[in-house]
Amino acid sequence: MPGILPLKRLKCWKRCSVANKISEIGEFGLIDRIKKTAEKNPKNSRVLLGIGDDAALLKLSPGKICAATTDTMVEGVHFDLRYTPFFDLGYKAMASNLSDIAAMGGNPLLALITLSLPAKTSVKQIDQLYAGMQALAKKHRVVIAGGDTVKSRELSITLALLGECDPKNTGLRSGARPGDAVLVTGDLGGSQAGLDLLKTTLRQGVRHTQPGSSGQEIRNPKSKLARKHLRPEPRVAEAKLLASRFKLHGMIDISDGLASELHHLSKVSKVGIIIDQKALPVAAQTIVIAKMLERDPQKYCLYGGEEYELLFTLPPREALKARALIHKQGTACSIIGQVVKGSRVSIIAQNGKREKLTNRGYTHF
Amino acid sequence: MPGILPLKRLKCWKRCSVANKISEIGEFGLIDRIKKTAEKNPKNSRVLLGIGDDAALLKLSPGKICAATTDTMVEGVHFDLRYTPFFDLGYKAMASNLSDIAAMGGNPLLALITLSLPAKTSVKQIDQLYAGMQALAKKHRVVIAGGDTVKSRELSITLALLGECDPKNTGLRSGARPGDAVLVTGDLGGSQAGLDLLKTTLRQGVRHTQPGSSGQEIRNPKSKLARKHLRPEPRVAEAKLLASRFKLHGMIDISDGLASELHHLSKVSKVGIIIDQKALPVAAQTIVIAKMLERDPQKYCLYGGEEYELLFTLPPREALKARALIHKQGTACSIIGQVVKGSRVSIIAQNGKREKLTNRGYTHF
Repeated sequence: MPGILPLKRLKCWKRCSVANKISEIGEFGLIDRIKKTAEKNPKNSRVLLGIGDDAALLKLSPGKICAATTDTMVEGVHFDLRYTPFFDLGYKAMASNLSDIAAMGGNPLLALITLSLPAKTSVKQIDQLYAGMQALAKKHRVVIAGGDTVKSRELSITLALLGECDPKNTGLRSGARPGDAVLVTGDLGGSQAGLDLLKTTLRQGVRHTQPGSSGQEIRNPKSKLARKHLRPEPRVAEAKLLASRFKLHGMIDISDGLASELHHLSKVSKVGIIIDQKALPVAAQTIVIAKMLERDPQKYCLYGGEEYELLFTLPPREALKARALIHKQGTACSIIGQVVKGSRVSIIAQNGKREKLTNRGYTHF
Repeated sequence: MPGILPLKRLKCWKRCSVANKISEIGEFGLIDRIKKTAEKNPKNSRVLLGIGDDAALLKLSPGKICAATTDTMVEGVHFDLRYTPFFDLGYKAMASNLSDIAAMGGNPLLALITLSLPAKTSVKQIDQLYAGMQALAKKHRVVIAGGDTVKSRELSITLALLGECDPKNTGLRSGARPGDAVLVTGDLGGSQAGLDLLKTTLRQGVRHTQPGSSGQEIRNPKSKLARKHLRPEPRVAEAKLLASRFKLHGMIDISDGLASELHHLSKVSKVGIIIDQKALPVAAQTIVIAKMLERDPQKYCLYGGEEYELLFTLPPREALKARALIHKQGTACSIIGQVVKGSRVSIIAQNGKREKLTNRGYTHF
């Protein structure tokens, strides 16, 4: 398992790997190679049929319903190969989909992978991409059960992920109720800070990360943030815990930024939300890096995308219990505000003043 | 519903539609527009939650298992916008996925759509694309339940399709048994002939098709073949009929060409297959067009891709019954050969000689 690579290696990533192009092994050669990666799939008795037929077959647990999501990443839009190793690319593509199933309170089971690949892509790069996907899939016992590979001018990865939910307890965007507390897992702003750090470092031509290897802790705080951006950890275990212990109310994952997701919750649940700026979880290293880059850490926290943290609401008593349980699992969890009647999303700023929270997040087009 | 367009209109397709680009309405504007198309979704009580949350929710019928597939189409690889109207593009993307679920003997239920779109794409083009997908989805009571939209340099459409199967009766590639008859629905070679016709006509700058409109029959046989290529009809009803009346043996859909799929069946089922060339169903119009283009209609039939016909095997007695039942539904069905012991795929040529059937089909990279 490769770590986050030093800039020197990153820069030559594309150049080094032109040998053994997929055009040399052909489509069926590539498919055979991908089929072999299926040997690394975790055992999961619910996946009755994986790679190799017209469709994959999945048996849900008795009484459960199927949750299905899809998410795509396109080169030049979602990632830049100059600082994104193929392993991390696969890891993140899996993470963003797992995060969506988690945000329903679901248990992820099966993934279908569509790769659109330029003919110059190397076999080694594909192996790394799959290794990244498999690493995270294995952690959550998800089986890669097929997909599609096509030639294209630009590289893109699309996953479809299937999981199962308790039909009586799904985490919906429409579930927030006035009186609920608003909670968030982990800390916020780190992914965006990590991205800006990677970009700045690339521009300056400075080595920003330390080579990591399997199991080796990357101690450099700069690397930690880059890692938060490149290899986010979806909150699957935390979501399963919540679904098993509480009647879920509103739930969404933070992919477009906290502010944007709060507005989603507010709009779909038809409620107002008040957030306390002082309660927002921003990691010390995010503040350090924001300072270094002359950015506002609070803006990172409110508008930074690709956090893959869970944003959810629960009645106050359950919220306290949930926070304690998630802490016990080793994940930070903060109560950051409350749900109120109305339709306004506002924030109590550091100076105690209540302000409207701008609905702004990352948008394509 | 637009028909197959005359060349003059096709040529200006890209040029005409630069007004109202999606970049003007933004990502959320586009998503809102897509959400509105959900109003055209057919009623399907098994889809508990469609567009608008982190994942779609699907309740399977009691005792059923979930079949999941994904298939993608990339501009310049799978289609050429000079002769592919956006409506047909949507229709075909839906068809290729429906065909995969059909080939498992499944009942399709829910689709997730990923659109990778250049910023210059027009709102009207997206509307047409969705209209094409919805038209076919509605026919088979499939609900479009979300997906992803991303900016990219090249246009591509990826669908993930979920359906349900009887766990005791799925159509697998591994199910062919020595002694089985080999059957195929519809006729073969038409899609490839249609594609060559479209390409040739485009090169020659001749108007090859007649403008069609909602409900208007396109009587020109040339248009019929172009239509077979542009708007293939997946054999969903036929597959459901087979699954409800017979214990399914080998089954696969023809996407890469008959020869290629026969080799798939043979390899995975560990059997030999003998095909009778005289029994192969080639439509009169395919022969006419092949002659006109100086091509071999038998090659179209054996190696032409994107037919989306069902290729399946059943014991001889059931095969006769199945053929009659499918005929009764208004779809052609032919017995084209038999499954034997061994591993060889061969064809009895017109002259009565038995030859090895080359494993050749369309391949990317």
